[in-house]
Amino acid sequence: MKFILVSHGSFAKGLVESSQMIAGQQENLVSFGLYPEDDINDLKNKIETEFLKSEMDNIVFFTDLFHGSPFNAVVSLMGKYDIYHITGMNLPLILEALMARMNEDITPAELCKSLLANANNTIIDVKECLKEAN
Amino acid sequence: MKFILVSHGSFAKGLVESSQMIAGQQENLVSFGLYPEDDINDLKNKIETEFLKSEMDNIVFFTDLFHGSPFNAVVSLMGKYDIYHITGMNLPLILEALMARMNEDITPAELCKSLLANANNTIIDVKECLKEAN
Repeated sequence: MKFILVSHGSFAKGLVESSQMIAGQQENLVSFGLYPEDDINDLKNKIETEFLKSEMDNIVFFTDLFHGSPFNAVVSLMGKYDIYHITGMNLPLILEALMARMNEDITPAELCKSLLANANNTIIDVKECLKEAN
Repeated sequence: MKFILVSHGSFAKGLVESSQMIAGQQENLVSFGLYPEDDINDLKNKIETEFLKSEMDNIVFFTDLFHGSPFNAVVSLMGKYDIYHITGMNLPLILEALMARMNEDITPAELCKSLLANANNTIIDVKECLKEAN
């Protein structure tokens, strides 16, 4: 399964780098950033080209923020193709996705369902959490 | 209020860059990354120095991942100081925090509570969301 991360600026690139520091070098994990000088149509073309390079039904897109240009670029592809897309990406989510796809039988639909089921547990108030633990 | 973002690699740096692309240049928004060649004690010292530079009771830390060295570096400071710390950071969370601190009366405790109340809504399965909208 391939994961394509898309964000404003270098966030997606940094997320790929950081996840590889933890999970080791990964294949089929790519990032695209929209920088202030970039044309949104160039980004759309780049991610469509990347999408069409692989088996279309075995790809999940991750974006930084609901609404916003990178999100909208992926949503515009969703009008043309059947695309899996999770927004609000963070490191726990990407690491969980990398672990989950090690099971070669898992489908993008199953993976997205499983990620969303656990998404609520990925953002934690550590001060409150330690208070409860003591 | 000051926000200190800490992560593996360049994730925190990318998140600061991307959030400034949306919210404009920000003061009191800093990032630290732990790179493979870095010593964890250097990171601890750097974030402690940054923490002590500002009003201690007006700072919130954000980290990439529950457990992991950057998280643990912040938790080690929590043993010495009264620290607000949210882990699992993503772009919607940081943008919401930047908006919230524009109200100068808000405290870190109130800000963290408000961020956590909305955290569940920041990670979205867009395919499912569009299905429901149609």
